[in-house]
Amino acid sequence: MGEFELIRQHFQRPGVKLPQDVVLGVGDDGALLRPEPGHELAISTDMLVQERHFFASVDAAALGHKALAVNLSDLAAMGARPLGFTLALALPKADEAWLAAFAKGLFSLADAHACPLVGGDTTRGPLNICITVFGQVRAGRAPRRSAARAGDDLYVSGRTGEARLALEHQRGTAWATGAVGADLRERLERPTPRNALGMALAAVDGMHAAIDLSDGLVGDLGHILAASRVGADIELATLPVAPALVALPEAERLECLLAGGDDYELLFTADPAVRDAVQEAARASATPVTRIGRIKAGASELQLLDAQGQPVSLRVQGFDHFA
Amino acid sequence: MGEFELIRQHFQRPGVKLPQDVVLGVGDDGALLRPEPGHELAISTDMLVQERHFFASVDAAALGHKALAVNLSDLAAMGARPLGFTLALALPKADEAWLAAFAKGLFSLADAHACPLVGGDTTRGPLNICITVFGQVRAGRAPRRSAARAGDDLYVSGRTGEARLALEHQRGTAWATGAVGADLRERLERPTPRNALGMALAAVDGMHAAIDLSDGLVGDLGHILAASRVGADIELATLPVAPALVALPEAERLECLLAGGDDYELLFTADPAVRDAVQEAARASATPVTRIGRIKAGASELQLLDAQGQPVSLRVQGFDHFA
Repeated sequence: MGEFELIRQHFQRPGVKLPQDVVLGVGDDGALLRPEPGHELAISTDMLVQERHFFASVDAAALGHKALAVNLSDLAAMGARPLGFTLALALPKADEAWLAAFAKGLFSLADAHACPLVGGDTTRGPLNICITVFGQVRAGRAPRRSAARAGDDLYVSGRTGEARLALEHQRGTAWATGAVGADLRERLERPTPRNALGMALAAVDGMHAAIDLSDGLVGDLGHILAASRVGADIELATLPVAPALVALPEAERLECLLAGGDDYELLFTADPAVRDAVQEAARASATPVTRIGRIKAGASELQLLDAQGQPVSLRVQGFDHFA
Repeated sequence: MGEFELIRQHFQRPGVKLPQDVVLGVGDDGALLRPEPGHELAISTDMLVQERHFFASVDAAALGHKALAVNLSDLAAMGARPLGFTLALALPKADEAWLAAFAKGLFSLADAHACPLVGGDTTRGPLNICITVFGQVRAGRAPRRSAARAGDDLYVSGRTGEARLALEHQRGTAWATGAVGADLRERLERPTPRNALGMALAAVDGMHAAIDLSDGLVGDLGHILAASRVGADIELATLPVAPALVALPEAERLECLLAGGDDYELLFTADPAVRDAVQEAARASATPVTRIGRIKAGASELQLLDAQGQPVSLRVQGFDHFA
């Protein structure tokens, strides 16, 4: 099967109507998008490489889902409504069953977010999936990493750490050898990007900085602190803990919660005056949001506090895909 | 060197001012672009894989140039002014000298087109370069593959075939073992995307279809014919022939001219009533443009004509990167 036939068979969807924002989709030299007047175009790109971001054994449908999910998650952190995405795919061979499953997982999530495939590239080579996603956000409303202010509340959506526990289980780590349910594995393989929450939050006056959690809570918070030249306190007792993490020894539980990676939750800051509006955005998007600390003066100073408000000394690290 | 350090050192350019269209560049969850009112956003993506699109021996600066050039060429075919691009890069190791040279070749072309890097991703893996480029074009003015009409003139910019001859020379093919100048190799390794021409043409009323030549003239023309449900005549004697191709046997010369691949010239159609406007666009953009035939009725019927206007039978093929 040649490149054009492969694209036609698995990635063109003649029956699916394109939304109005997409003037031209797959099949020309480029796609044409028309963002609404008064909006900016948000763009993010992520590349997934075998053995680095997923194992060869991963289910192809789950991989299709995840490749788009990690990109949608970046749009969520920009408060942008998804408009479309491009897919560049290098494949060692044209495996029909694999491609069909991959496309199914991919388009299932794409359709759920009204985010059509608008272009791409296919080539033979070591398996590599590169997605670039486009969204629109009202001009000036995207919550940037650099916008956190001393005094802000610090929030996280959903729960962190489950993907990491599932990963340790796959790796056969001693502290994660207990039974792991399918739901935990889903958290690693089929993360839920928080786009509805991100869009709702972008409409809240007093919403400041946001980032999506891909490399672990503490590591990603570090990007906000550095970009905003502020510090933060995290109250450990307030961190939402998934049932699967409760039985873990404390050190491992905190490792999962604070440095888990692959969470694809939103970490964000907002003025304490808008707590109600933040919780309303959470309700409207059916996404749990928990206040876990606050932003303070003192560039990049991060303090972990125990239930009594006493500083805790703990070594956690961000996850560096290149190291 | 970790991912963040690698990005900081080679791909962040604190001294370089971003153009006004770029609201937010590298360093957040996503970039923010603000196309001008009344414009559409043109998007194209290309992935380059070692041994498939380039040899391991290729000069890193040339590779940086080419990775962006092939994407800019797609924007040229859409008549779009470049706004920015994202780069996703998988590297087997963080080789300082390689990265510095790659970045130099990349940014040299980017700066020449006022097309800044606005985001990206870096990871460890088999060498893979995926660029997605963004441009803006006045709403409704992008020349589509489907817009050719019977009666249109058929044009090509510059000259085709030199990149193919250089490639055959690298491969050691018998008919390309003669001396090959550095300029020929440049045509393969450092193609010149025709963005100035593409933008000038998009402003011409009566300009219809366009495509950029990556897979060979006949193969790419086939995409226009199929999308527009028309046929075409090519007058072989009118094809511009580079000096390096003159001494080739006729069959090989035609193979280069018609099925060369990697030309990155523009192939386009326009109403015969606007010949002067087309030549004015060529002059204004300092890009030679040659009329090589015409569009006719008869879906996908391509006829090659000799100097006497007689049909020539010739077997040429497009180049399929996946086959």
